[in-house]
Amino acid sequence: MSNSIDFYFDFSSPYGYLASERIEAIAARLGYTVVWHPMLLGAVFKITGQSPLTEAPLKGDYSIKDFARSAREHTVEYQHPEKFPIGAVAASRATLWLRDNCDPQLKARTGDFIHALYRAYFTAGQDITDPTVIASVADSLAIDAQTLQLAIATQAVKDALRIEVEQSIAFGVFGSPTMIINGEPFWGHDRLEQMERWISSGGW
Amino acid sequence: MSNSIDFYFDFSSPYGYLASERIEAIAARLGYTVVWHPMLLGAVFKITGQSPLTEAPLKGDYSIKDFARSAREHTVEYQHPEKFPIGAVAASRATLWLRDNCDPQLKARTGDFIHALYRAYFTAGQDITDPTVIASVADSLAIDAQTLQLAIATQAVKDALRIEVEQSIAFGVFGSPTMIINGEPFWGHDRLEQMERWISSGGW
Repeated sequence: MSNSIDFYFDFSSPYGYLASERIEAIAARLGYTVVWHPMLLGAVFKITGQSPLTEAPLKGDYSIKDFARSAREHTVEYQHPEKFPIGAVAASRATLWLRDNCDPQLKARTGDFIHALYRAYFTAGQDITDPTVIASVADSLAIDAQTLQLAIATQAVKDALRIEVEQSIAFGVFGSPTMIINGEPFWGHDRLEQMERWISSGGW
Repeated sequence: MSNSIDFYFDFSSPYGYLASERIEAIAARLGYTVVWHPMLLGAVFKITGQSPLTEAPLKGDYSIKDFARSAREHTVEYQHPEKFPIGAVAASRATLWLRDNCDPQLKARTGDFIHALYRAYFTAGQDITDPTVIASVADSLAIDAQTLQLAIATQAVKDALRIEVEQSIAFGVFGSPTMIINGEPFWGHDRLEQMERWISSGGW
């Protein structure tokens, strides 16, 4: 048993963003830590044959309305981006480079980096596939942008994302966000409360 | 503004069943009534191109595990039926015949009839597409089974279901359960808490 919440998310996922804004407070209440796992919904969709949520007939209209409604409920700032969805490969590689970094100071900035990227996209409509946007987010957190750019072009970091995505699928992760606690998966921003009840009650 | 929760459900939907077991208590707490709307996911899937949840790669395994887990959390009896999914046409027609009946005593049994059918399927694995099963459920509630069988074969009741299904799709209903409160839709058993907060707070 470990006291950690494995948090799987895609940078292009509105519900992933909403949950990312709430998960650390929930974890803190429970005495748990958050382990961040960027994943790529595009890789999942190749297996499941799904399309992006907003493009689904009927469901798409509901989801766009619900992103904003669920954000309002939890007073999370949200502006549906004009360019949607986006490819999250570069942002995900940068996240893994930080998370798995040997430098503890860089490693410790993983959560802040994720929040800053997500907010750039979902509150300011910035294109976080653009290397200059990623660089400017890095700058704002005193992460050397040039080092980051070089790092995410290395084979080691590319492989790290490929392995992370393959592992997430092997663990059955098919949506963003997915929280896994000691093997128990909870899918969806709307399952955060259930996940919290599960942890605090010891399961049922 | 009306104090009613329009509750859309498919008789083959595990989450529809779970929510049906909880919705009346929630409505009572809020001073609301429940209006039952049988719908047919098959008609939705023709538009959306979706498949039954349990047949979806990755998502299917999670959902089967989650049906039982969510049932346990709310202490609702649940046994995933061997024959799944099923066609809900006959059960839905019977429900509409009761709901829209001029006889107030029959009309008043709509909720109990829905619960009895759902429980027959999701706790005892009975095939509720079978007219003899529907008849026996009717019998148990002192509803004349022969009258019911004749009624659901009439064009009027067939039309009633067709219209109900068309209307649900026109209202944007794409999943079971969906709760609509004065035009505000909430999709999913896992949104009952959010729906309750929405109603009791006056929305946000």
